[in-house]
Amino acid sequence: MNGTPDLAFARKILAAQPFSALLGTRLVAFGDGEATLELDNREDLRQQYGYVHGGVLAYVAENAMAFAAGTASGNRPLTAGFTIDYVRPADGTSLLARARVVRAGRGLAVCRCDVVCVGPDGGETVCAVAQGTISFAPAAAAGRS
Amino acid sequence: MNGTPDLAFARKILAAQPFSALLGTRLVAFGDGEATLELDNREDLRQQYGYVHGGVLAYVAENAMAFAAGTASGNRPLTAGFTIDYVRPADGTSLLARARVVRAGRGLAVCRCDVVCVGPDGGETVCAVAQGTISFAPAAAAGRS
Amino acid sequence: MNGTPDLAFARKILAAQPFSALLGTRLVAFGDGEATLELDNREDLRQQYGYVHGGVLAYVAENAMAFAAGTASGNRPLTAGFTIDYVRPADGTSLLARARVVRAGRGLAVCRCDVVCVGPDGGETVCAVAQGTISFAPAAAAGRS
Amino acid sequence: MNGTPDLAFARKILAAQPFSALLGTRLVAFGDGEATLELDNREDLRQQYGYVHGGVLAYVAENAMAFAAGTASGNRPLTAGFTIDYVRPADGTSLLARARVVRAGRGLAVCRCDVVCVGPDGGETVCAVAQGTISFAPAAAAGRS
Repeated sequence: MNGTPDLAFARKILAAQPFSALLGTRLVAFGDGEATLELDNREDLRQQYGYVHGGVLAYVAENAMAFAAGTASGNRPLTAGFTIDYVRPADGTSLLARARVVRAGRGLAVCRCDVVCVGPDGGETVCAVAQGTISFAPAAAAGRS
Repeated sequence: MNGTPDLAFARKILAAQPFSALLGTRLVAFGDGEATLELDNREDLRQQYGYVHGGVLAYVAENAMAFAAGTASGNRPLTAGFTIDYVRPADGTSLLARARVVRAGRGLAVCRCDVVCVGPDGGETVCAVAQGTISFAPAAAAGRS
Repeated sequence: MNGTPDLAFARKILAAQPFSALLGTRLVAFGDGEATLELDNREDLRQQYGYVHGGVLAYVAENAMAFAAGTASGNRPLTAGFTIDYVRPADGTSLLARARVVRAGRGLAVCRCDVVCVGPDGGETVCAVAQGTISFAPAAAAGRS
Repeated sequence: MNGTPDLAFARKILAAQPFSALLGTRLVAFGDGEATLELDNREDLRQQYGYVHGGVLAYVAENAMAFAAGTASGNRPLTAGFTIDYVRPADGTSLLARARVVRAGRGLAVCRCDVVCVGPDGGETVCAVAQGTISFAPAAAAGRS
């Protein structure tokens, strides 16, 4: 493709991820090295103590960083790997994963992400922080999310 | 509780995770510093290219490492953080996440995990590798998966 | 000890690390969840292409995060683990590792760190970013840096 | 260059790293997706409690993984990023960092590494485990260790 994708295009990519549809993820910001995903805190996303499962936080952080990287390249972002550290139990009414590019080169981008819980009153609390490496692949080679 | 949990107890923990029920995760091995989770490759677990979503691989690796740590302590394992690197697109008929404890102390355990794709013929291919730190919390303080 | 350490105390800790003396590391800021280490770019800290060795960047990031965590607790900070991503070749006249606490609990703290190169004109460029988990140990149990 | 490097060539690369010369690192195995570095436990490599500094363990793990990746490609390995978890205080007479390639593609390799302490009697104890991503750069672009 020519140039970098816009929000409408990026939303089509997210809509084409059946797993993101299953979880109800929404792309609420996309551009200029940043992307934000949002997710309602549903009963079926929880672990045995009633908090959002750590795997959901990992999923949304990974996906947000791949989208953030996607703002910086016309090629397809594929996550090479990432790290997440959990800092508080995740509850509230929804989650936001705010990712931003630290540095994007031709072949790789490094991103950071904050995952925050949004309470019933709109208050935000950081529940996890992540850092990852996203590679850029030509269209034909893209296999990973 | 007294002593470390057994497979039957650990399966009850997994069954008490609504998110694991949503994804259809099964605990197929548990004991002696090791735990293996299994997951069918369903259409609704995929990303936009038809492979299993990287977030699913992260979820199952995280969960398997927490269970592996749980074999080593009577206290509740809570993942402090982990890293995952993706090495091949994930397809096939099912996924296995095989986690093992590298070292467990009183307060923390370090684990590694291989996530493998199982093909229709039973052949296995590593699609991601992970490493993580799990903390042990007394029953009253347990909030994270 | 009572309360959290101050800059003078923290400098004594750094001075008691023979490896930090070998590399010439200085503690230039310490307090309120933040710590900054500084290091001159010497010939003997380089790799085969003339840039600062990635191992030096990892060392200074790890150490800065442990000091940042140390601002938040009277107990001894021991790094449980960390991740570093390299984003640019490191040169210039000196390096700064600026670490800050994301969240500190009683037993663990999660920190982030930016490692920047300082050019001859004082200009700064980020060359690596890190994220790590530091555990707090009572005085008698402290073994790791 | 044509083909992948051999032990003699790889030792020249290590010898061309002033920081590795400062620390006294030796390359003791190299080939078939594996590399092992060795380092004597010297007084000036320690932290304030008398153990080997965590930064030394990070350095040797990172370097060993880059060498392991280098067995798999004729291009120059540059570490994109890595994670290390510390599992025991590091002492003994020497350290070994044993790295192996999990998967090497054209552009990236993922490696794992065990860092072990060797006691006076030759006994080995794992003190840290690492996992990292190494990128391959054509000769002209190689900037990082």
